[in-house]
Amino acid sequence: MDVAALDAAVSKRRGLAERFFDALHQASFDGVGITRASYGEGEQKAHEIFAELARELGLAVSRDAAVNTYATLAGRDRSRPPVMIGSHLDSVAQGGNFDGAAGVVAGLVTLAALLDLGFEPDRDLTVMGVRAEESAWFGVSYIGSRAAMGLLPEGTLETARRADDGVGLGEHMARRGGDPERLLAGPAHLDPAALRCWIEPHIEQGPILVQSRKPIAIVTGIRGNRRFPEARCHGTYSHCGGEPRWNRSDAVLAASELMMGLDALWDEIDGSGGDFAFTPGKMFTDAGRHAMTIVAGEVGFSLDLRSLHPETLDLIEARLPALAAEIGARRRVRFELGAMTRAEPGVMAEALLARLRDGVGQLGLDAMEMPSGAAHDAAAFAAAGVPTAMIFIRNRNGSHNPDEAMEIDDFMGATRLTAYLAAEVASR
Amino acid sequence: MDVAALDAAVSKRRGLAERFFDALHQASFDGVGITRASYGEGEQKAHEIFAELARELGLAVSRDAAVNTYATLAGRDRSRPPVMIGSHLDSVAQGGNFDGAAGVVAGLVTLAALLDLGFEPDRDLTVMGVRAEESAWFGVSYIGSRAAMGLLPEGTLETARRADDGVGLGEHMARRGGDPERLLAGPAHLDPAALRCWIEPHIEQGPILVQSRKPIAIVTGIRGNRRFPEARCHGTYSHCGGEPRWNRSDAVLAASELMMGLDALWDEIDGSGGDFAFTPGKMFTDAGRHAMTIVAGEVGFSLDLRSLHPETLDLIEARLPALAAEIGARRRVRFELGAMTRAEPGVMAEALLARLRDGVGQLGLDAMEMPSGAAHDAAAFAAAGVPTAMIFIRNRNGSHNPDEAMEIDDFMGATRLTAYLAAEVASR
Repeated sequence: MDVAALDAAVSKRRGLAERFFDALHQASFDGVGITRASYGEGEQKAHEIFAELARELGLAVSRDAAVNTYATLAGRDRSRPPVMIGSHLDSVAQGGNFDGAAGVVAGLVTLAALLDLGFEPDRDLTVMGVRAEESAWFGVSYIGSRAAMGLLPEGTLETARRADDGVGLGEHMARRGGDPERLLAGPAHLDPAALRCWIEPHIEQGPILVQSRKPIAIVTGIRGNRRFPEARCHGTYSHCGGEPRWNRSDAVLAASELMMGLDALWDEIDGSGGDFAFTPGKMFTDAGRHAMTIVAGEVGFSLDLRSLHPETLDLIEARLPALAAEIGARRRVRFELGAMTRAEPGVMAEALLARLRDGVGQLGLDAMEMPSGAAHDAAAFAAAGVPTAMIFIRNRNGSHNPDEAMEIDDFMGATRLTAYLAAEVASR
Repeated sequence: MDVAALDAAVSKRRGLAERFFDALHQASFDGVGITRASYGEGEQKAHEIFAELARELGLAVSRDAAVNTYATLAGRDRSRPPVMIGSHLDSVAQGGNFDGAAGVVAGLVTLAALLDLGFEPDRDLTVMGVRAEESAWFGVSYIGSRAAMGLLPEGTLETARRADDGVGLGEHMARRGGDPERLLAGPAHLDPAALRCWIEPHIEQGPILVQSRKPIAIVTGIRGNRRFPEARCHGTYSHCGGEPRWNRSDAVLAASELMMGLDALWDEIDGSGGDFAFTPGKMFTDAGRHAMTIVAGEVGFSLDLRSLHPETLDLIEARLPALAAEIGARRRVRFELGAMTRAEPGVMAEALLARLRDGVGQLGLDAMEMPSGAAHDAAAFAAAGVPTAMIFIRNRNGSHNPDEAMEIDDFMGATRLTAYLAAEVASR
């Protein structure tokens, strides 16, 4: 493959990228931000725009039972596992134009450049516009990608309801032309074992690239997590005037000590070069019973604990209950951590990482490497055993808000790298 | 004074104490606990029972403009400052029979014993049944005692409304035969400078006497406080997946660290033999915005900080904002402690403490000494400059609940000590 020619071909398709982003913005700007609800109007328009642009390029467009959209450049041997590039086309309410969509645009620009060059891949090259990645709408992540692989948890179609209208997931799919019954009956549209790889370019949702003055990053892994959505600390309500210290069971102090204990564990893991993050997003005394002069008898809280490394998550799983028990015994309270959910880290394929590093060198890109703290469709593909790679694009002001700001120059750098990797993998 | 004779006379009036407590229970049991709302039906009946029993004994009964009830044994020189014994007759909703009432019963039993002995005091001896001590009803403490001394904060009669019916304090007083206009016009019914002393027997609201196996305690002082009813910690909401540690402004972690800092200060003060207690009764993320996967951008909390010692309260007043500022700078959050209220410690009169210690020895009582963590009418009298003494009576299961349990034996011990002190002070 002539790398310089491919790189030039991608750069020439900058106009297609701008046209795609503009069309998406126009179709889903709600007056404040971008709203493309999962299986909603904005997402639907985004899939139509993607399909229309793909057809203009002469690509084959298809849909699956979950109404994901695929645009395919056919390879010489169509029986070989295809290379997949993509990301999701939905957004949170009043979000930004780039979270998700950038990966689909990068994929389409890649195929356009390959077509311009008359490139004939050995295997199919497919861009997937994924439905319903954002958990804000149905309380479930990666609906589209997992549905495509037949990996949606049982009952989700029936029980998940969209937060804004209360209508069920199956019904929403059907309204967009999907086929929930076929999804249930199988077989799955995508067999994970029959995919060559999944490549997902995505904006970085945090500030690291901005702070590091780097336009793009090779993602080294996606953090897994342990989550305790509804933990509680049970103490004893008592009047603060009469209750001596040795007889108090103060749930606020005990929960505060637990938070500081986890913060110290974070220091410890950081100090030893490990990867960890924890977030106590909720912590609250009971609004119906708490009072300034009453020792708090109960505190509810949530914990989200993440790491790139399975052994760190195992460590947390062992240390957290021990820490809670120790504090509980000493402070005369009882911690009830409640149900725990697990998501294993998304491991990036070493061979793809090596090729991305080669690509950065050959294309003269200014890139760094970093883990992804947030989850992505890539995590679903990686969990299913598909060799997976992610590329982050610099983005100001965070994501999930109208102020998302990605520069097209940065996007084009990421797309050049995407095209490099896709062409490399599709040629062998 | 013949101490043994007085002691025997008090003990013989055990039946009066039992009759008084039984009548109070019968008049204010609500099916679950005791309810004597401030200026409500139960409190009114308690005042009527008190007045009726006092009249039976031949005592002079009177009322003031705030409808407090007074029963007086006239002294030889009625112009001399009277000795006052008493406590409040209201209760919280579904509380117990002894919180407050025990002090009035002890006072009446004292006067009955002195009458039985034909004792003629040098000065008036008055038992006061106080109205509206419990702040649960009007959101204001010591209404009756402060009103009697003309010390009710300006505007309270007009603005304080009872929690259960929304009716104003002045209106409630008027319904019970009080005279809010006279209260406002003055002069006050009691001139603090013209009171010999205030003696308040009261059940202990905490578990210290039970744990120490002591029936009574001499109270060494009443804790003052600094309170922050509506403090806040302002951080920044951000998605926990993308936000690196160095860029987080986590309000839960910052508030938790503040709690642990105050807990360490408590250790420090305890360790140096000082007196301190703090209670973070409320601590809560915003129910409308918090989520498991979002770094908490705001936490509300309350702080009640108490000590017997003014210098400790001054120390807290200086250290707390400094601690909050230090944590805030390090954790990139802003603490807004909000309005602070102050209540100075209630200093017990040294001369009365010395007489109580003498009485314990002479009567052969088994007593300890302890501070009062909770506030009482005694704090209002002490703050007004009246020499003040308090006696605690052992009580199981805490107060402000139907399970309050005071033994009559313990009560009689406290009453013997009350009678000793009252007779001593009234004889000189």
